[in-house]
Amino acid sequence: MKLLIEDLNTRKTKLLASLKEITASGMIITNPYNIFYLFDFFHVSTERPVAIYLHHNGETIAFVPSLEEEEAKRKKNFTRVETYFEFPGKFNIYQWMIKHINQCYKVENIYFDRLSFNLYKVFANEFNNLFNTDLIHKQRLIKSRLEQSFLRKAANYADFIVQFGSENCQPGISELELLHEMTGATIQKMVTELDEIIYVPGGPAGGLIPSGGRTSHPHSLPSARKISAGDTLILSCGANVHGYRVECERTFFVGKPNKRKKMAFNVMAEAQNLGISLMKPGMKCAEIDNQVLDYIKKSGYGDYLRHRTGHGKGLEEHEPPWVEAGDDTELQPGMVLSCEPGIYIDGFSGFRHSDTVIITEKGAEVLTKFSKKIDDLIIDI
Amino acid sequence: MKLLIEDLNTRKTKLLASLKEITASGMIITNPYNIFYLFDFFHVSTERPVAIYLHHNGETIAFVPSLEEEEAKRKKNFTRVETYFEFPGKFNIYQWMIKHINQCYKVENIYFDRLSFNLYKVFANEFNNLFNTDLIHKQRLIKSRLEQSFLRKAANYADFIVQFGSENCQPGISELELLHEMTGATIQKMVTELDEIIYVPGGPAGGLIPSGGRTSHPHSLPSARKISAGDTLILSCGANVHGYRVECERTFFVGKPNKRKKMAFNVMAEAQNLGISLMKPGMKCAEIDNQVLDYIKKSGYGDYLRHRTGHGKGLEEHEPPWVEAGDDTELQPGMVLSCEPGIYIDGFSGFRHSDTVIITEKGAEVLTKFSKKIDDLIIDI
Repeated sequence: MKLLIEDLNTRKTKLLASLKEITASGMIITNPYNIFYLFDFFHVSTERPVAIYLHHNGETIAFVPSLEEEEAKRKKNFTRVETYFEFPGKFNIYQWMIKHINQCYKVENIYFDRLSFNLYKVFANEFNNLFNTDLIHKQRLIKSRLEQSFLRKAANYADFIVQFGSENCQPGISELELLHEMTGATIQKMVTELDEIIYVPGGPAGGLIPSGGRTSHPHSLPSARKISAGDTLILSCGANVHGYRVECERTFFVGKPNKRKKMAFNVMAEAQNLGISLMKPGMKCAEIDNQVLDYIKKSGYGDYLRHRTGHGKGLEEHEPPWVEAGDDTELQPGMVLSCEPGIYIDGFSGFRHSDTVIITEKGAEVLTKFSKKIDDLIIDI
Repeated sequence: MKLLIEDLNTRKTKLLASLKEITASGMIITNPYNIFYLFDFFHVSTERPVAIYLHHNGETIAFVPSLEEEEAKRKKNFTRVETYFEFPGKFNIYQWMIKHINQCYKVENIYFDRLSFNLYKVFANEFNNLFNTDLIHKQRLIKSRLEQSFLRKAANYADFIVQFGSENCQPGISELELLHEMTGATIQKMVTELDEIIYVPGGPAGGLIPSGGRTSHPHSLPSARKISAGDTLILSCGANVHGYRVECERTFFVGKPNKRKKMAFNVMAEAQNLGISLMKPGMKCAEIDNQVLDYIKKSGYGDYLRHRTGHGKGLEEHEPPWVEAGDDTELQPGMVLSCEPGIYIDGFSGFRHSDTVIITEKGAEVLTKFSKKIDDLIIDI
């Protein structure tokens, strides 16, 4: 708890320094993950607007619906908590926020972490200088020691859920049922071992576990399809500790894979190892993606690429940086990435491993440890 | 399947007629539920933009990342499917959409179902007349016979998950573990009985099940807290069939409730019945909310109100209309609502039942049937 309070102070101090540099009067924060990152206040995002106004002097006003009032006040991380009763309400909620901000502060300009058109329209009536900024996301790129410790813990559960799935997969079980057993066992373990569980969207642990031809669609959602002998099975899983998410994904075979599957598997596995070896300080995301996808293209599987090499991990399932052609971010120690190039042969099979890594001075520290040897990925039938 | 195709045609025809009335050239649809409603294409919404351009002549262009390409093409519901490889990519994805739209159509103005500031900035460079519209949400207010049949089926599972939870709650079990057993049993039943399961965010069945003092926070997320004798326990559950969501929520007592709890419970239960009796054609949402909350205030519990009487149900957990002071929508047959006034005494206990109802000519058809008698809501210990 003491460590968390110190970390929250550091995060806020750093953001205030950035706001000073751009002579910002203040910032409106509406992304729920940014709010959690800065103020340790987690809420279920609905149609009811929640926003934090952070003034450049460090004071805050939390604007919340009345059903979040007690939670927002409990941790004492906000200077003021202002509540409106409900959505949509009889007055414009954004105008009401502006009124409160103007009552407390002199505001020349406001920066937003996520400016919707509706928010923009109302605020533009009152303020001349509105700007979108990714300052907080940029700050979140580098994970603190505390954040890294949450991620290391989460990796154990991400490994565990994959292991449990591979050990409890029997032909005849549906994807939905197997996934349910996997999440149940993992949550049980987490409840026993952890002091606190932050229930982020998607739950403490879970995943997608496409089987058979469904593996060739990268985002196949859990279905009632029964897993059977001869299937490919991708256990694409994750877990979070204190909201920090780690993914571990492995491609399994229910019974021995044929030659065509083995060939594609090996190319994917080599490409994934290549990606990890390239993830070190100074490397650019785009360059890593280029080399990894190029390896797959040169191996003859270019037609079967459907996505980039990876993405940032942290409070969000996917967050910057993007290990992709359009992102020139240079890697630095403390960044956390997934490495997960995939091959998807429509109707036949998909192939993807994913590891979550922390960038250190020496290169990638691989958090997820589950074996990637093909012999360990064959489920006996 | 035939019924669904007919329904999809009717939905599209109706929307095209509305677009004709406002002489719209076309519409950009980005809300994933609107896309599913019109085109039966469900996707996991991520940072990768997905948009459908619907021209006033009925033709469509689906803009999707390459990992959704096969799914978007499979159902043949789009005239064209255009794919970009990945996010963020080396070019602006919205500019790329504009290029394709201009290649195919002469566009004077565009309506958007959900205009973000970033989308607006790029499109405003090309087109003079951009408008936000809630046409699709307005159309979705009235559920078709097919949609109502999905909701009636979903209600069975919403009732089942509450029943299973009440029958399997034993002091000592944690909220997370009980919730897990409940969702497991319900999904198992759904896998056995249903042809198809649409895996919407949150899964086929689930809920929040706060216990003890946690019930006094309306949105308490599942925790490792162990349920114990003397607790209030709110099983706030839901299930969906073909994406259509129904909620059933009941306030239980682990062992006999004391007098203070019984009094608050009775006021909540009366208010909830009052709400249902008021839900009939011609009544305005704001008026229902006013009468229901007023009943609670007059009964002495006004300080413990934290939310409105209810909200629309359908493809989204919460959708219009809002049974709240700021929504003057007049109820019509085919609308679907939750009725769920609540009382929340901080640190002591919360009280809330929710039913999902369809508005018919005669009044509210209550889909969720689980008993609301206090004697049926006491869990023996």
